[in-house]
Amino acid sequence: MRSDGREQSDLRPFAVTLHPNKYAEGSVLIEVGNTKVLCTASVEERVPPFLKGQGKGWVTAEYAMLPRATHTRNQREAAKGKLTGRTMEIQRLIGRALRSVVNLHALGERTITLDCDVLQADGGTRTTSITGAYIALALAIHKLSGTVGFEKYPLTDYLASTSVGIIQDQAVVDLNYDEDSKAKVDMNVVMTGAGAFVEVQGTGEESPFTRAEFDEMLSLAEAGIRQLIELQKESLGAAGERIGKGKP
Amino acid sequence: MRSDGREQSDLRPFAVTLHPNKYAEGSVLIEVGNTKVLCTASVEERVPPFLKGQGKGWVTAEYAMLPRATHTRNQREAAKGKLTGRTMEIQRLIGRALRSVVNLHALGERTITLDCDVLQADGGTRTTSITGAYIALALAIHKLSGTVGFEKYPLTDYLASTSVGIIQDQAVVDLNYDEDSKAKVDMNVVMTGAGAFVEVQGTGEESPFTRAEFDEMLSLAEAGIRQLIELQKESLGAAGERIGKGKP
Amino acid sequence: MRSDGREQSDLRPFAVTLHPNKYAEGSVLIEVGNTKVLCTASVEERVPPFLKGQGKGWVTAEYAMLPRATHTRNQREAAKGKLTGRTMEIQRLIGRALRSVVNLHALGERTITLDCDVLQADGGTRTTSITGAYIALALAIHKLSGTVGFEKYPLTDYLASTSVGIIQDQAVVDLNYDEDSKAKVDMNVVMTGAGAFVEVQGTGEESPFTRAEFDEMLSLAEAGIRQLIELQKESLGAAGERIGKGKP
Amino acid sequence: MRSDGREQSDLRPFAVTLHPNKYAEGSVLIEVGNTKVLCTASVEERVPPFLKGQGKGWVTAEYAMLPRATHTRNQREAAKGKLTGRTMEIQRLIGRALRSVVNLHALGERTITLDCDVLQADGGTRTTSITGAYIALALAIHKLSGTVGFEKYPLTDYLASTSVGIIQDQAVVDLNYDEDSKAKVDMNVVMTGAGAFVEVQGTGEESPFTRAEFDEMLSLAEAGIRQLIELQKESLGAAGERIGKGKP
Amino acid sequence: MRSDGREQSDLRPFAVTLHPNKYAEGSVLIEVGNTKVLCTASVEERVPPFLKGQGKGWVTAEYAMLPRATHTRNQREAAKGKLTGRTMEIQRLIGRALRSVVNLHALGERTITLDCDVLQADGGTRTTSITGAYIALALAIHKLSGTVGFEKYPLTDYLASTSVGIIQDQAVVDLNYDEDSKAKVDMNVVMTGAGAFVEVQGTGEESPFTRAEFDEMLSLAEAGIRQLIELQKESLGAAGERIGKGKP
Amino acid sequence: MRSDGREQSDLRPFAVTLHPNKYAEGSVLIEVGNTKVLCTASVEERVPPFLKGQGKGWVTAEYAMLPRATHTRNQREAAKGKLTGRTMEIQRLIGRALRSVVNLHALGERTITLDCDVLQADGGTRTTSITGAYIALALAIHKLSGTVGFEKYPLTDYLASTSVGIIQDQAVVDLNYDEDSKAKVDMNVVMTGAGAFVEVQGTGEESPFTRAEFDEMLSLAEAGIRQLIELQKESLGAAGERIGKGKP
Repeated sequence: MRSDGREQSDLRPFAVTLHPNKYAEGSVLIEVGNTKVLCTASVEERVPPFLKGQGKGWVTAEYAMLPRATHTRNQREAAKGKLTGRTMEIQRLIGRALRSVVNLHALGERTITLDCDVLQADGGTRTTSITGAYIALALAIHKLSGTVGFEKYPLTDYLASTSVGIIQDQAVVDLNYDEDSKAKVDMNVVMTGAGAFVEVQGTGEESPFTRAEFDEMLSLAEAGIRQLIELQKESLGAAGERIGKGKP
Repeated sequence: MRSDGREQSDLRPFAVTLHPNKYAEGSVLIEVGNTKVLCTASVEERVPPFLKGQGKGWVTAEYAMLPRATHTRNQREAAKGKLTGRTMEIQRLIGRALRSVVNLHALGERTITLDCDVLQADGGTRTTSITGAYIALALAIHKLSGTVGFEKYPLTDYLASTSVGIIQDQAVVDLNYDEDSKAKVDMNVVMTGAGAFVEVQGTGEESPFTRAEFDEMLSLAEAGIRQLIELQKESLGAAGERIGKGKP
Repeated sequence: MRSDGREQSDLRPFAVTLHPNKYAEGSVLIEVGNTKVLCTASVEERVPPFLKGQGKGWVTAEYAMLPRATHTRNQREAAKGKLTGRTMEIQRLIGRALRSVVNLHALGERTITLDCDVLQADGGTRTTSITGAYIALALAIHKLSGTVGFEKYPLTDYLASTSVGIIQDQAVVDLNYDEDSKAKVDMNVVMTGAGAFVEVQGTGEESPFTRAEFDEMLSLAEAGIRQLIELQKESLGAAGERIGKGKP
Repeated sequence: MRSDGREQSDLRPFAVTLHPNKYAEGSVLIEVGNTKVLCTASVEERVPPFLKGQGKGWVTAEYAMLPRATHTRNQREAAKGKLTGRTMEIQRLIGRALRSVVNLHALGERTITLDCDVLQADGGTRTTSITGAYIALALAIHKLSGTVGFEKYPLTDYLASTSVGIIQDQAVVDLNYDEDSKAKVDMNVVMTGAGAFVEVQGTGEESPFTRAEFDEMLSLAEAGIRQLIELQKESLGAAGERIGKGKP
Repeated sequence: MRSDGREQSDLRPFAVTLHPNKYAEGSVLIEVGNTKVLCTASVEERVPPFLKGQGKGWVTAEYAMLPRATHTRNQREAAKGKLTGRTMEIQRLIGRALRSVVNLHALGERTITLDCDVLQADGGTRTTSITGAYIALALAIHKLSGTVGFEKYPLTDYLASTSVGIIQDQAVVDLNYDEDSKAKVDMNVVMTGAGAFVEVQGTGEESPFTRAEFDEMLSLAEAGIRQLIELQKESLGAAGERIGKGKP
Repeated sequence: MRSDGREQSDLRPFAVTLHPNKYAEGSVLIEVGNTKVLCTASVEERVPPFLKGQGKGWVTAEYAMLPRATHTRNQREAAKGKLTGRTMEIQRLIGRALRSVVNLHALGERTITLDCDVLQADGGTRTTSITGAYIALALAIHKLSGTVGFEKYPLTDYLASTSVGIIQDQAVVDLNYDEDSKAKVDMNVVMTGAGAFVEVQGTGEESPFTRAEFDEMLSLAEAGIRQLIELQKESLGAAGERIGKGKP
């Protein structure tokens, strides 16, 4: 059994507060255990220069941690004058993951920016950001569909993410900070509602892993993400009805 | 009467959630109308280079807005690679204001950093940050007093802040965003529990103001801040008992 | 009596050299005691992007100190790669103050940039910059009026600035560096020829101040600025004749 | 069959030039098809601040492309003034991968920096950099072992990397640029001589992938990396003899 | 005699590899002794903003050293976030020198960028870069002439560069790193095929030099550059035939 | 005859104001025609890291132009966030030139920084900066000699600089801005009191120059600098008496 009493395949408690921000087109406060991320979706009626005139839209993400989201205070990246490699890696990952379930042509020439700001961090901030950003994105597209009149609904599927790792030779899902710092392998998985993989990122810096270990971790992640997607469906309710239907 | 039904001297609804962050030595979520600021106080057992070896501590502040705290999304300062002049001006103001009620010698060689992150902005973010940061600071010093054993309690008084302005020739207190953009004069006042002024910053870029207008605004601000300090006392309860007593 | 023999309400010696720069549309070397600031006004026939097509102009300011303007050498901001918060705060203040007496519509779609470069600093560099920049601005607008043919003269009033503070419980005006470092309160005031306030910025970081102290300081500042405006009128002579008349 | 005539599981031609740089402790020019990377290993007798006094060493990597390594010229990151997210991601990956086969305690308090500079790019620059950097690292450690006298040989295993992807529903290994831009899935795998995985990074931005596809790609990568490790062994010859033996 | 056995007026061994880069319009790997520079010429069908619409082209250069081009590793300028003064000085010199033999009107509205990347440095990297960049430029213009149809051939002459200095009161040409660090005077000369000077930069920081010493150094440089230009002619062969003829 | 009536070998009017800055250890306002540069010398009792513990000092220089020193306003380098290549090149040149006449061992472990701020520019700002910075340096060393007690006087010779160029096939000395922009060759020369060259930098970007032209220019520069050094001697008077004597 794990330090917080969970079984190998147990996710942490999951909570979602919809619309915490009164300005954003979509917003959600997601809590996975003690990890809390505020996700907002902002819609702008323009696309980045490299997409101009192609009749398609763009979905991108930014990620940051408040200075005291962690045990000790971190310097702000704005004060340092540049983003760390870790931040860039994470925000590229979030954007890429979300784009895999968006029909950018159906979206039209507009950009949706997902801001994921970590208010409190206890492991899994990048996977929680993806799971939460998806909800904010879905709310924004739902809202947009009421005013814009899409020919095809731009969201092609659900999408969520969790982490898996190996601690003392046992694979476990959804690691908290304490587990994360002890794990010999760390893997993040992003999967769609249809069960297809969008990202599989496994790292064994401390200790390489075997194919068998890899397979076990991937199975745990699959099961965990299926649960998260059910929770997303509940949270979104009617706002998620047209996802993946391809209709207007 | 004002657009949201308030009288000239009415503050907006005020709400405080203590300890929203499980790591920080002090933290508070403060809401003044629709303006919401998360304030954390972080204690570090070291001082900046210019204070080393002087037997005194330091209190400083940082301020930021989440990208979608406002009607339209703003670019992150971390992405721009530098702080705007506005941000620097505000965080210098917050730090200066708080230091005026801290006995830095009594604090000892440690630094308390107040992070004020605006989750949602509807006018008055700098004054709300000061009022909230004071509470987080008081919580952190109260907690510290339990472990450190101060010879004198380092907090010498209460401190809060509000804004005043002139709209259609009438002075009003605690302006929301909509009022702020219509006001011909904008003034921010910081005052202590004893009723002494720490900062008075009035700006009449659109239209200079007379001494009589100035006096009326200052009186409105005084009355408003007195109410805010009462609310701080209620929020802090026993954690505020030793403030200004000069005892251990 | 003060360390340099002045009474409470005495300004320091004031000197102005007009046209020290042969290229600028307006320029002045202003000396207030040992503080020397070179102010140039540069006119450009374009406006910043946020004003394009609105038929109005812009007035802005930049401020810097030469590295050895002070007792010990300071690193150049260009070498550091960024402006300090203090510099940004000051240049925002200068620009805001000057715009309060300019009719931007009357100015037309052009920008006037005031560069205030402190050659030697002995207290009051920001207030001296405002007083000097006003003269450079007036010279530039006077010159411009000869070639452009304004429908209304764009300068609506005179404008000057000084500092006040409290040293050993006594309010004094126009503090030099030595006094500034001893003062418990520091206040900068910007006022128009008509006696209306544009900026009032009082800071009591070391020690908060009472309303009575505040009122005394403000009165001292008013009297001082009236004298400065008389000196500006003398310096400008005929170049100042049309200020505030609203005529072409 | 593939556009350059290879079978699904064929690697591109592989060439290695040892010691192209006369100053570096280890260096190699690696060519995989038309991708050419110059890798140097630099040994310094100090460790980064976070490791000081722990009796262990550090291995890190930097990655860059010459401006004309690609079809069209790219702006230098030094001219832009910052590293792109892509560069940071790649150099973090290379460093992490190499550290997984280094016993940092055995290495002692010294840092080895691997510089991977892409002279010409035709797909697979990050995997080629890892495979080449490993050789440069092995040469540097071999050279160091002659002067330093390790108690345990610090290299614990061989390590190489290749890419796999899916093009027109067929999994292929070691994609060139042309294939890479057509692939619906892109996966990079790093594996040790013992066949354990160090990094598995699969991305299906354009199109998510099934578990079966994933398994097929992973098997292709395994087979490809086994060949690359044989080629590394040949290249290193006697310089590789003590790798993984744990002896001095 | 010199440490490497050369006479006072002997150049180091010179080697040129044409077309080392398969994408660039012109490229060369030049080796002068142990100094190795990879030079690529990139043609773009646009000019910098300051030249737009003038019917003329632009030639510019960038210069960098790989981190381990030297005895000890240097930090990358991209990691520092800015170019050093030395790099800027060198790339301005290379660009200026090359433009002196290009008829920019004949070139038409296009930009040729010469990238000089030092793979290994043993003295004379800036002069070697100029000599090599000229060859890459000549190859690119020759290639361009086949597709564009110039009215006048844009290259007006040959151009090369070498260094001279004074060691133990004796003038020597083409200094290696070891000599360079001992020389009391250091001079770089750029000359055309017609024997006219484009740049003469002599520096006697350690010890000023007399006019007689200056004259001797200049004569040595002239003789050395004549040899280098002969070597350039051999390397270019038919690709250099139209240089300086002014015909299409 | 030249546009301003000067003969080929005539310098422009030369004026020097000593001690314009009351804080700097040495300062001078130098005017050469309409070019005006304020030069201050700042002494600090420490050396840069690379010189620590070697018992020798350092002399370095910084250069900047005020934004409106020129016909049209230039953006501040502090606002751009970085120094231009031109500025870096010039300040490296000034520092190198001055160090050639300073015995750094005799100076002892201290740094003298020369700040050259161009108040008004009309050609020759870099040569005027060198000539003026030398005077400020001499004043600072003279002052220092009164308190420090040098064993050898650290200034080994006088030093000045001027420019030469070729306009309409005629060599001329000390070019103003208008001449500078028409010259086909531009050369800056720095020479000592003993008539030895410290820097010779000739550039023929627009048109290469012959050895005969070069010789004529160098002779003109020599004669001009001899005059400038006489003017320096007059300006310094008794403060220059010990220069080059090698005594205490």
